[in-house]
Amino acid sequence: MTDEHQTEGPARPVRWATITGVEVTPVAFADPPLLNSVGVHQPWAIRSVIRVRTDAGVVGLGESYGDQAFLGRLRQMGERLVGERIVDLHRLEEIARDVLAELTVSDTHGLTGTLSPVKSVARLVAAFEVALLDAQGHQLGVPVWALLGGQRRSRVEFSGYLFYKWAGHPGQPDDEWGPALDPAGVVAQARRMVEGYGFTSLKLKGGVFPPEQEAEAVLALAEAFPGMPLRIDPNAVWTVDTSVRVAERLRGVLEYYEDPTDGRAQMAEVARRVDVPLATNMCVVGVEDLPEAVRLGSVQVVLADHHYWGGLRASMELARTAEVFGLSLSMHSNSHLGISLAAMVHFGAAAPNIGYAFDTHWPWKSPEEDVVEPGVFTFRDGHLDVPTAPGLGVTLDEEALARQHRRYLEAGILDRDDTAYMQTVDPGYRALKPRW
Amino acid sequence: MTDEHQTEGPARPVRWATITGVEVTPVAFADPPLLNSVGVHQPWAIRSVIRVRTDAGVVGLGESYGDQAFLGRLRQMGERLVGERIVDLHRLEEIARDVLAELTVSDTHGLTGTLSPVKSVARLVAAFEVALLDAQGHQLGVPVWALLGGQRRSRVEFSGYLFYKWAGHPGQPDDEWGPALDPAGVVAQARRMVEGYGFTSLKLKGGVFPPEQEAEAVLALAEAFPGMPLRIDPNAVWTVDTSVRVAERLRGVLEYYEDPTDGRAQMAEVARRVDVPLATNMCVVGVEDLPEAVRLGSVQVVLADHHYWGGLRASMELARTAEVFGLSLSMHSNSHLGISLAAMVHFGAAAPNIGYAFDTHWPWKSPEEDVVEPGVFTFRDGHLDVPTAPGLGVTLDEEALARQHRRYLEAGILDRDDTAYMQTVDPGYRALKPRW
Ligand SMILES: [Mg+2]
Ligand SMILES: [Mg+2]
Repeated sequence: MTDEHQTEGPARPVRWATITGVEVTPVAFADPPLLNSVGVHQPWAIRSVIRVRTDAGVVGLGESYGDQAFLGRLRQMGERLVGERIVDLHRLEEIARDVLAELTVSDTHGLTGTLSPVKSVARLVAAFEVALLDAQGHQLGVPVWALLGGQRRSRVEFSGYLFYKWAGHPGQPDDEWGPALDPAGVVAQARRMVEGYGFTSLKLKGGVFPPEQEAEAVLALAEAFPGMPLRIDPNAVWTVDTSVRVAERLRGVLEYYEDPTDGRAQMAEVARRVDVPLATNMCVVGVEDLPEAVRLGSVQVVLADHHYWGGLRASMELARTAEVFGLSLSMHSNSHLGISLAAMVHFGAAAPNIGYAFDTHWPWKSPEEDVVEPGVFTFRDGHLDVPTAPGLGVTLDEEALARQHRRYLEAGILDRDDTAYMQTVDPGYRALKPRW
Repeated sequence: MTDEHQTEGPARPVRWATITGVEVTPVAFADPPLLNSVGVHQPWAIRSVIRVRTDAGVVGLGESYGDQAFLGRLRQMGERLVGERIVDLHRLEEIARDVLAELTVSDTHGLTGTLSPVKSVARLVAAFEVALLDAQGHQLGVPVWALLGGQRRSRVEFSGYLFYKWAGHPGQPDDEWGPALDPAGVVAQARRMVEGYGFTSLKLKGGVFPPEQEAEAVLALAEAFPGMPLRIDPNAVWTVDTSVRVAERLRGVLEYYEDPTDGRAQMAEVARRVDVPLATNMCVVGVEDLPEAVRLGSVQVVLADHHYWGGLRASMELARTAEVFGLSLSMHSNSHLGISLAAMVHFGAAAPNIGYAFDTHWPWKSPEEDVVEPGVFTFRDGHLDVPTAPGLGVTLDEEALARQHRRYLEAGILDRDDTAYMQTVDPGYRALKPRW
């Protein structure tokens, strides 16, 4: 029943590993000039790689935001974790509260809703929770999904994430994707993404051009890919009336309509006036947002994101709580590396109530620029197979980490600022909400 | 760093144990004539003991209700679990739904709210979830609390659970506790319980005598144990006005007021008119009850019970969801054996948001009549130490199980029915709600 690589029980009692040190390494990787409602992606996306070392020889990996202030918090928190056992996940919230209590500067994250103290705790907890689950998995010899309640799926489905984009960064040659500034460009991008990854649903990041033009692009996608489920996400820069007008134009084409307008009250008004499910990663970004969203009927789909919902276990709770309230689930993405992708796949393997393919920025990053050893994740038919190796199932490549850290140092980008970058090209540019 | 009984990682990948068989054994143990709002406890309490066997030599234990119909479902479900891996906890809900879909008879549970299909699934899932977590813990070498997010507490606090009672069962000699039919009897019972177990809070099961008499008993407790936090639970047989009148009489004495009246709307009305926190294990017995209870302001404290909330992980989710809605947590108890006690302790070790000592019927059962090997749980100062051994930390005593199963067969009690038993003494007795 067993082979030489596997054990079966009963096992002797485990002495839980204790944390001996935490390394937080900022990294950067090349990012194309993807347009959104607040500007354009800078030439380098920044992330933090968290490595939790223990006295038992196991290491846990995490990945999160790379902004300067957040890096400082991760490091403060990392220092306080020394001496804690990797099993005591509840300590993360206690320690995060302490770390944040000493701070006075508040956070803002333009594309994922307003931050509150609760949400700042959740972001900090999440980065380490994934790393501790990875370490637990390695110590016990089980995949992370086993620590989340079992393997509900053997494959996790993702959606193709389309962006309006320039041909290349200003002053640089065209990138491999080329321009996408009109319906034809968006369709060409979609074809390439569908051919390369097999995606069977597509999302267009909107809020960039006048709504009518964006609706045209979605209709062009519907024509080019008959029956393909489509989504558009203008990041809440449309008024209620604009949102309703665009929804009417796109009737029968969208599987969901993501954050067309700002706030739970306006979303609820749109929901009453359209017949497509509304989705959000902006007006419901923590369990504390759910009661009002439910009461108002603001959304029908919530996009989980373990990076800001407090980790994988909190995202599991979101999935179940949402089910109780009759809401379905999808998953949000930022520009990310292989550690975050692995965490998303383990969540997708374990979570109930997932109604839609997850977002991912994965295709926008060069495979040459990851920090984990390649080969674990290969998209087939828009799906990734769920790893069965211990922990997250990915291995840090030390050289790659050093290389991407050097790129971070060379890039000199300390904070993501899509608006400021856009202003270097268009000095009069302003991030307006609503814009249309 | 290690001793010969412990391992540390990284471990080789675990091959998850597969379920090879499930045994469901009904057992009975002597129960004193404890009075409540629907009658009196029968001479024997019945429970089910669930044993999940696997191909890896590990066994998982569960304990739940012992009623005939429920036993049938447990067995049906047990058969379908053969071939499932112990890690795939999500399968429990899927299989429970299938088992219940074939049934047409609906459940009733008079003292823990009305049952719905969702709640029937939750009860069935729970019995096996605990057993699978126990088996997982044994296979991995970790306690169940490690699978629930870590050890938040090293000791779990319980409350002394007082009952009005007859001196003995009709036709039998007095039991060791003797009568408690007036304030002096209740105080004497409390003294014995506090001396034996060190409880530092006390709950009186009410709904038995006219409310004024029960209020007298609580006031007698307050006088006998100055400053001791007290609770009364008449199981919802009082009207709103009676509930308010008793609360006024007991002002400053109660730590919470448990289910004085029936239903979320009436509870909310009482909540508006009294200044003591309202608690429930009757009007909020599933996450689907929370939204209305929150909207109405029906309760401030929810009593978790993994047996009907869908298991330990669902109870963890309740704890966190309740926190989001500003509700505190305690834990409900039925007459139970050591397997359920262990599960309660692991929940208490791991759960956030616990504001009050848990209920337990433990003192009412003879230590001679458990099915687990003795010695794991000893009350000190009203607390139990949290086990650190793998799984639940309790071991089934085969001989004891056989003995208590024989008692079940001899007792001939197939369903708990406190009302019918009371009617053998008082033929005109009726379970009324409201009664006062
Ligand atoms: Mg979005
Ligand atoms: Mg009660």
